[in-house]
Amino acid sequence: MRDKEGAVVDLTVLGSSGAWPSKGRACSGYLLESKATRIVLDLGFGTLPRLLEYCSPGAVDAVFVTHAHADHCVDLFGLYRARSLPKPSLPPLPVYALPEVMSRLGSLDGPEGPARLTQGCDFHPLGPDSTAEVGPFQVRAVGLPHFVPNLGFRVEVEGFVIAYTGDTGPTPLVAELARDADLFVCEATHQGPPPEDPERFLLTATEAGRYAREAGVSRLMLTHFWPDDDRTVSYGEAAREFKGKILDANEGLGVTLA
Amino acid sequence: MRDKEGAVVDLTVLGSSGAWPSKGRACSGYLLESKATRIVLDLGFGTLPRLLEYCSPGAVDAVFVTHAHADHCVDLFGLYRARSLPKPSLPPLPVYALPEVMSRLGSLDGPEGPARLTQGCDFHPLGPDSTAEVGPFQVRAVGLPHFVPNLGFRVEVEGFVIAYTGDTGPTPLVAELARDADLFVCEATHQGPPPEDPERFLLTATEAGRYAREAGVSRLMLTHFWPDDDRTVSYGEAAREFKGKILDANEGLGVTLA
Repeated sequence: MRDKEGAVVDLTVLGSSGAWPSKGRACSGYLLESKATRIVLDLGFGTLPRLLEYCSPGAVDAVFVTHAHADHCVDLFGLYRARSLPKPSLPPLPVYALPEVMSRLGSLDGPEGPARLTQGCDFHPLGPDSTAEVGPFQVRAVGLPHFVPNLGFRVEVEGFVIAYTGDTGPTPLVAELARDADLFVCEATHQGPPPEDPERFLLTATEAGRYAREAGVSRLMLTHFWPDDDRTVSYGEAAREFKGKILDANEGLGVTLA
Repeated sequence: MRDKEGAVVDLTVLGSSGAWPSKGRACSGYLLESKATRIVLDLGFGTLPRLLEYCSPGAVDAVFVTHAHADHCVDLFGLYRARSLPKPSLPPLPVYALPEVMSRLGSLDGPEGPARLTQGCDFHPLGPDSTAEVGPFQVRAVGLPHFVPNLGFRVEVEGFVIAYTGDTGPTPLVAELARDADLFVCEATHQGPPPEDPERFLLTATEAGRYAREAGVSRLMLTHFWPDDDRTVSYGEAAREFKGKILDANEGLGVTLA
């Protein structure tokens, strides 16, 4: 881990709703900036017009997508349009994702859309153990259980660690993903006791707090709230497990690691 | 045409960007309300969290989609999620659209997605000459030329007429669609002289103004602006052709017909 002295990393919340965007909000999306490099983790419903408040379409250096559900990636298709439709077009958008993200998203343009999207982006297929480097950002993917394949991301940059689950069921891999992170962005879809499903593909706020404690993170940001849930309930549940600082993943929130 | 006395119809702009949502905006979407019935025309990128500022997911009586491009329909998939994911789920969302809208949107959920989306909504397939009735709204579709099949909508409600192009190239059908309308929502993607393409699938602001004049409409609302264009240029060009009132399709604008 490099010396953090003088380094600054900014995270901006583009969206925090799970499943669909509740009123005035957006679904999952996080902008990370360091040393004039900008990467985005997920781009769900409603995130693109928020991203463009902070930078132009051409100023995004890479988008990383956790999984192929629309609440995590659908506005990537809008950013692709913004990068490719103007003439002359901007350089292809670097996209790091599971291949099915491109096939599902591309289908929005019909049967030939997936090939066109893949060719129109600078596409880097990811798998459950992939690594990638974009400017100062070093990203490691970790396969986590969800209804569809999902990648958590562990991002190291300028000596800081930011971990992000995407969507996941309970697994020891979550604490491993977040080990000693400076900031742990953890989905906390459910409130109350865990649902009694035989297989689990989403976390409760209590579980998010427990993993944050086990991982020894500095700060926990809860996100992917079920639309219209009272978020103070989720914070309370997580706070009973995790005694460090818990952040409010409201749209527009900026967090500086320095 | 019925007596308008005492009738009130409200239109709210959910989004006005063409192609992709420019910063802080959204793509095409319009909420129409009359006598406690709510229909939505198009639901492009970024429109759903705006729609939900005005009504809950269950309070939408129907969505009409002009064509299968993502900037006109992608957030319909979010509204479908909002109607179908909670348990117990809300009544299926009535959707009036060309069949390809459902097949492209449904592909966001993988190969079985189109069938699931179609079955999960109360789907009414439209063609170029279809009519539909939802509460007090009588809607007539008119096939208009675009890169993919596009339907303009002529909506009659409580004696008022609202016409909406979706996306269209120049054709006399546009003036026919808008004949004597109280409000004509017309796409005006381009500024300046018409592009020299052999085939035309989008209008200039000058053409929008000309069709408004030819149709004898009361009010013209320009929309579907190219992202980041200076909209005052478009208004100026349309105003040279159309001497009636021209409205500014800003997100959140409400227009009352009474």
